[in-house]
Amino acid sequence: MACEGAPEVRIGRKPIQSYVLAILMNLVDQNAKRVVVKARGRNINKAVDAVEIVRNRFAKGSNIKVESCEIGSHEIEVTDPNSGQTRTRRVSSIEICISKE
Amino acid sequence: MACEGAPEVRIGRKPIQSYVLAILMNLVDQNAKRVVVKARGRNINKAVDAVEIVRNRFAKGSNIKVESCEIGSHEIEVTDPNSGQTRTRRVSSIEICISKE
Repeated sequence: MACEGAPEVRIGRKPIQSYVLAILMNLVDQNAKRVVVKARGRNINKAVDAVEIVRNRFAKGSNIKVESCEIGSHEIEVTDPNSGQTRTRRVSSIEICISKE
Repeated sequence: MACEGAPEVRIGRKPIQSYVLAILMNLVDQNAKRVVVKARGRNINKAVDAVEIVRNRFAKGSNIKVESCEIGSHEIEVTDPNSGQTRTRRVSSIEICISKE
């Protein structure tokens, strides 16, 4: 587990700006030393984008860096709406830990 | 740069099975110790998926693991097809290094 105990930003369906803001709020406003950005499936690239936007656009002067980046996968249960059958599906996930010096 | 000198698998528009096969070919057939999987933009989640499929489905017994995972971004030049103007765009990227013991 990357970045144990650090505040989490979970990437979902909202526009990317929401997550960029959430990361910045944690780092700047809440003065957190580290933030962990988590995403699953199709949101993985949005997570990478959000971290890169924070790093390139908003954090040029300060020392924000990617401390670690871990990938993994989870089994989730999906119910087929037509047949009503449940089956397990594998979903990839990413956890990016960013830190501020 | 992750996995200096290791054979590369670049994730593009092909179906994910092609890339899973390419990774396996390098590790098993070519007997490479390490492989680096690279992707940009929307293909980032496909890269994570491909690595996770290799790790979970085909490599249960053997010791294939993610050695490192790096994210970054590149500036690329895009030409607007209507106006003909070029502008720079930021594209996120990922490099996942997998190794076999």
